[in-house]
Amino acid sequence: MKEFPVSKTYRLIEPGPVVLVTTLNEGRPNIMTMGFHMMVQHPSLIGAVIGPWDYSYEALSMTGECVIAIPTVDLAAKMVDIGNCSGREVNKFKEFGLTAVPGKKVKAPLIRECLANIECKVVDTSLVDRYSLFILEAVKAWTDPNRKERRTLHHNGDGTLTVDGRVLNFQEKMVLWKQFQG
Amino acid sequence: MKEFPVSKTYRLIEPGPVVLVTTLNEGRPNIMTMGFHMMVQHPSLIGAVIGPWDYSYEALSMTGECVIAIPTVDLAAKMVDIGNCSGREVNKFKEFGLTAVPGKKVKAPLIRECLANIECKVVDTSLVDRYSLFILEAVKAWTDPNRKERRTLHHNGDGTLTVDGRVLNFQEKMVLWKQFQG
Repeated sequence: MKEFPVSKTYRLIEPGPVVLVTTLNEGRPNIMTMGFHMMVQHPSLIGAVIGPWDYSYEALSMTGECVIAIPTVDLAAKMVDIGNCSGREVNKFKEFGLTAVPGKKVKAPLIRECLANIECKVVDTSLVDRYSLFILEAVKAWTDPNRKERRTLHHNGDGTLTVDGRVLNFQEKMVLWKQFQG
Repeated sequence: MKEFPVSKTYRLIEPGPVVLVTTLNEGRPNIMTMGFHMMVQHPSLIGAVIGPWDYSYEALSMTGECVIAIPTVDLAAKMVDIGNCSGREVNKFKEFGLTAVPGKKVKAPLIRECLANIECKVVDTSLVDRYSLFILEAVKAWTDPNRKERRTLHHNGDGTLTVDGRVLNFQEKMVLWKQFQG
């Protein structure tokens, strides 16, 4: 995996892919599937809904750290299965044959098989009680430039996933976005 | 347009499409393009980043109402142009040939040409000062069931848009989502 500019995290999050979230709590690594998330602020604040019904909630609350990993279409079935069992009962890295790679800034592991990994720290918990909404700051990011399959997935909220299709280029017309383009 | 169950708003928002947001302030209708948004809570709380740099910010702050409209690929160029000019100078409905349709629960207009429209009220402004993050509640929703083009767009944060591709069905495996399936 190659380092990805953390200031460009929005390029990974804004398209709205379903993501995986890893935590490490008292030596126990875990993974969950997440669909309720957004970019909140440039360059690198992310909003993420992780609730007490998620086993990862305790780990995230205790450690203040997680990794957001972005899977592609080849991982669709695993991603669905990861979201339908609990780290209370299952060691998900082992169960699903995924490789935990140490991060640089957080203790939560990266997932080797994913297209991208974003190391995050919790920076604001003021809406956690009301909405289970954590504000995370991306502190380091990684991508796999050699990966051929790069199509991410979008959950339609009904058990179906839309796969990325073709890409339209409007870079010449999107003048207001230019300020964020490196 | 046909009414869409407001309790299923997450099916429109969770996939992460770029959306249009309309407001009506002192008789002036406006439209902006938005990419920083998320589902926050079932059935129908939405987080949306609209900042003082957006002309819509004042309208949303004053009226507490907006409509989130979801465009499809046929509207891609218009959506980009809408995001690159300001309602301060332009009447966007007129300029872009879009049809404003009255909503039922809010004064902000629906956009006839969009796949779906969600009428929203602001319910929490506690993170507006810090992050320009409004918590909206969907109070009424509409879709156009006769529309053939249904592929939405995802902004990659760099002036390119990914169009929806094929759909994978995991409804049998996604047991934890079943509780939200009507």
